[in-house]
Formats: sequence, structure tokens, C-alpha cells
Amino acid sequence: MSDPLTSWRAGEARSAILDFVEAVTREGGPHYVAPAERIAVFDNDGTLWCEQPIQVQGFFLADRVKQLAATDPELAQRQPFRAFIEHDHATLHALGERGIQELFFATHAGMTEREFDAIARSWLGTALHPTLGRRFVDNLYRPQLELLAYLRDSDFRTFIVTGGGVDFVRAFAEEGYGIPPERVIGSSARIGFEIVEGRPVLRKLAELGSFNDREVKPANIGLHIGRRPILASGNSDGDLAMLRYTLGGEGRRLGLLLHHDDAEREFAYDREFRLSPLAEALDQADAYGITVVSMRRDWGTVFDEKDHAP
Amino acid sequence: MSDPLTSWRAGEARSAILDFVEAVTREGGPHYVAPAERIAVFDNDGTLWCEQPIQVQGFFLADRVKQLAATDPELAQRQPFRAFIEHDHATLHALGERGIQELFFATHAGMTEREFDAIARSWLGTALHPTLGRRFVDNLYRPQLELLAYLRDSDFRTFIVTGGGVDFVRAFAEEGYGIPPERVIGSSARIGFEIVEGRPVLRKLAELGSFNDREVKPANIGLHIGRRPILASGNSDGDLAMLRYTLGGEGRRLGLLLHHDDAEREFAYDREFRLSPLAEALDQADAYGITVVSMRRDWGTVFDEKDHAP
Repeated sequence: MSDPLTSWRAGEARSAILDFVEAVTREGGPHYVAPAERIAVFDNDGTLWCEQPIQVQGFFLADRVKQLAATDPELAQRQPFRAFIEHDHATLHALGERGIQELFFATHAGMTEREFDAIARSWLGTALHPTLGRRFVDNLYRPQLELLAYLRDSDFRTFIVTGGGVDFVRAFAEEGYGIPPERVIGSSARIGFEIVEGRPVLRKLAELGSFNDREVKPANIGLHIGRRPILASGNSDGDLAMLRYTLGGEGRRLGLLLHHDDAEREFAYDREFRLSPLAEALDQADAYGITVVSMRRDWGTVFDEKDHAP
Repeated sequence: MSDPLTSWRAGEARSAILDFVEAVTREGGPHYVAPAERIAVFDNDGTLWCEQPIQVQGFFLADRVKQLAATDPELAQRQPFRAFIEHDHATLHALGERGIQELFFATHAGMTEREFDAIARSWLGTALHPTLGRRFVDNLYRPQLELLAYLRDSDFRTFIVTGGGVDFVRAFAEEGYGIPPERVIGSSARIGFEIVEGRPVLRKLAELGSFNDREVKPANIGLHIGRRPILASGNSDGDLAMLRYTLGGEGRRLGLLLHHDDAEREFAYDREFRLSPLAEALDQADAYGITVVSMRRDWGTVFDEKDHAP
């Protein structure tokens, strides 16, 4: 195989990946893992694509609220929509989790799965990142795309385990990452089965199914995959339980934690990112056997440049 | 390809399968379906293996209750265990759904996923079917194993969508059907993430996650697979929503309904099987475009004889 990780600079992180994959795929070797057991799980926001200045789904939600308000002026006068549209953070904060949830349900539920898929694909196809000036789907990390391909070439099965909405991520994961819908595990609304004009459809209900973050990530890995992964990749404390679960199995394991320390090429943040902070996982990385990946130091290239054409 | 369905007798069902697979895999043809979209879903009990005289998990539950009672005599005196052990159907019936649920939680929850897997594998490896005189895992239907292999050879991805417990079915689905754990969707307990003696584990909690039957089957297909299948195979009204959901998409679809009408080689039953009756799906098969498979007429062989050695 020619160098599978050309965007990774020589260093501890790159060596850890190559050593791990060579060890678990060497037949007859002491660390060999049968292909059936080669499960790799990846967080999405901040791990596979850029999540700054706010997570992509936040931009999607904002655009959807504006669209809804344009077609339904009454909605724009009701809370939490009014506060959201007017950037009235004090009121939004006072409305609390229920307000946020209502914004999510209004924009992510009520329609069929297929209708939502069309809405998400349409938005992802045109919406531009506010500072990088290209589409959100053009902000996939090239080193991670190489890692995904390297793992699959090594008979791994690659999964996304994201706090993002499962249907939102499925709308681009196959094209963007080569990961089919059934290998995307995410936050979800409950789903209803209905017959509409004689045709059976699935509807996204305004009711939380699962918020796939922190301890829920390994629990959903149990439910959806049914096997302990041997590799996990994340970038925040929301991924720590999944990393620990992965590293807690027998034999060779690899846990990768991406540290966004590259203000020049991407963004530099960790503890202060309120939506998804990185603190404990970074402080305890050594204790838990987690390999920290420094974007600045370990990645020769950040974005997948070939995707930048509109 | 040599004949992929040697255990299927010439007839409408066999022709329907061959025609369907040829149509959706013929590149450039009017019914071509890209491999990414080739999803096939199978019920398990009564569709892939024998579910009579009671579903296999019922036997498992009974053996587990006896084991628990042997190590904890007090449990044997408490309801619903006492009624269950004494075959006191009147009391069991009076205890209702809560009683059944308690029996399930006592035997299927409380332990880690890994512990349950070991218990289930051990039981499946030795427990004998009460009338067929061989292990339950030796009662897989050979024609269905051929169909699964034929579909996979035709670049389908095959899933189990079962009312049975997901961890129970995962304990034999990979070896028995060639279907890995992440392609088994079933009824489930909620899962807890815990650190036990420094090691992160998943525990099956005594709380229902999902009872994967009837309308819940297509809803869980949406959650776990995220794509409408193009082929579904079932054998009871519990599979009807999944069959209708599958057949409700555009383009060529195939819905197979196995009718157990073979008292000589297996069992003959439909409407009267209380746990999982077949009535509406059979009566409405034509209206819904469902292909009925008659075990007696369409299957040249029923069981996978090569598996019968102990």
C-alpha cells in the first residue's frame, strides 16, 4: 500500500495510527483482530468536519427558522422563535432547554424522513460557512478522510457516532465520508409509521428519541453496533465515554482526540467552547491512554482542498 | 452463477425472487437499483428459524427462570416466578403484561451485555428443541439461508428486524446467518454505561427500550438503517407494517410472507398462534402486493440438514 496518510505529518499520532492498524491486521501476530471485530467509531462535529463558529446544525436551524417565519408571520411573533430571530439571548436563555427543543422540533420534526432529507440536502448543497466562504460540506478534514479510507482498506467498518441529528448527518455522510446511513448513529426524534394517501411513510415526531452525547454514545453503540469498537476518534468531553468504552476492551485499542489548536488554518478552542467543551478528556488523556492529535502539529493539510470548487 | 435457490421448488415464489433480483441488478435496465440502495430485511422467529411450539426465547426464559430459582429459592416463592414455575396460567394471566415484563427483566437484564452474550451462547449451544430433538440453532430454514446468500452475492445488505431480543439474536446471527450484530435490529432493554472496577461496561437495564413489533419495525428501520428496504421477508401480522413500508417505495420491490402450512416437515399454523398470529397479512396479501410463500409447496427442503450434527 502506498502511504495511506499523506496529510498526516510524521509524529506520535501518525505513528500510533500506523502501528495500531499494522498490529491488529497482522495475521498470526500477537495483536491480530479478526475483520469481524474491526469496528471504528468517529464523532462528527469537530472530528470529521469544522464545527466553528457554531455547529453546522445551528446554522441550519437558524436558516430554517427564518424560512418558517417568512411563510408563517405569526410564528415569528411567538416565543421562542421571536427571541431567536431577534438574537434576544436573555429571553432565549430564560426559555431554557424547552425553548431550544421547540426550535429543534419546529425545524427537524413534523415532516416525513424523506421530506427532511430533501430539505437538509438542499441546504447543505448551497449554504456557505460564514468565515471560510465555502459550503459546510467543503470543510471536511482531509486527514480524517484519509484515515477513514485507510481503515476501510484494512477491513475496518467505520461508523459515525454523533451528537448531531442522525437524519441531518445521513444527508451528506455517504457522499462526504463514504459512510452509509446505517452506519450513522446520532441524536434522533421518535419516528411514527403512517399511511398517507395509501402510502406508508415514516414521520419525524416532535418528541426526543435519543440525545446522543456523553454516556449515551457508548450506550447507543451497544444498541446499534452490538460490539465494542477497537478505535474511536473524537474531539470533546462529549466523546470521552465513547473513548473510554473503546479503550476498555482487551487487546490493542486506539483512542484519538483531536485538539483544535490551529487558529491560523482552522480554529483554536477547547475548554471555552460552551456547546461542546474539551477539558477533562484533554487533562486525563494520558491517564486514559488517549492519543492526542494536534491539528497544528500533526496535520500537514487541514481541509480537503479538492472539494473546494463550488 | 449456478442455481442459488436449490431448496426452492419451481413456482411463483421462486420465480418472483429470481425475477426481482435479476431486474434490480441488471445495469442499464429499467428496474436497476444501485447497490447502495439494496437493503433487505428479514424477520427472525418463524421466518429464518422455527418458532414452534413456542418462540425460542420463551424456552430460554423458562430455563433461565429455573436456574435463577435454583440459586435463589426465595425467588421461586415470589410472583410472577412461582406461577411461571408451577405452570399456573390463571395467575400468570392475571399478573398481565407487568408479570411477563418482570420475567423478561429478571432473565434478560441486570447483567452486562457481555455477560448476557455468554449466557445466551452457552444456552444456544446445548439446549434442545422439545420435539425436533436437536438444538434450536439447527432449525434454521435452508431456503432462507440460500436466499440470504443469494442476496448478498447480488450486493444486497441483509438485516434482521425481529421482535426477539436484539442481544439474544445477535448471539447466533453471525454464525447462523452470516449477519453481523450491527445488522440485527430487535427488541431491546435500555442500556446503561458504567465503570466497574475501572473498566467501562454496558449494562442491560430493567427498563424497556423498544418492543420491535408491528409499526415499530418500520420505525426502527428508519432509526437504524435510514433507508427504505427494497425486499422484506416475514411470516406474521407483526411483519405487515414492515412489508407495507418496503412495498410502498418507488420501483421494483419484493415482499415475501412465509405461510407455515407444512405439519409434516415443520408445523402448520397461522391465525391461531396467539403470540404472533398471521391473519390480516394473509388475507390482504394480494391487495398489498405481498408474495405468499407456502412452506409445503415452495420449499423442497425445510431445514439446513448439514447443521443437524450436534
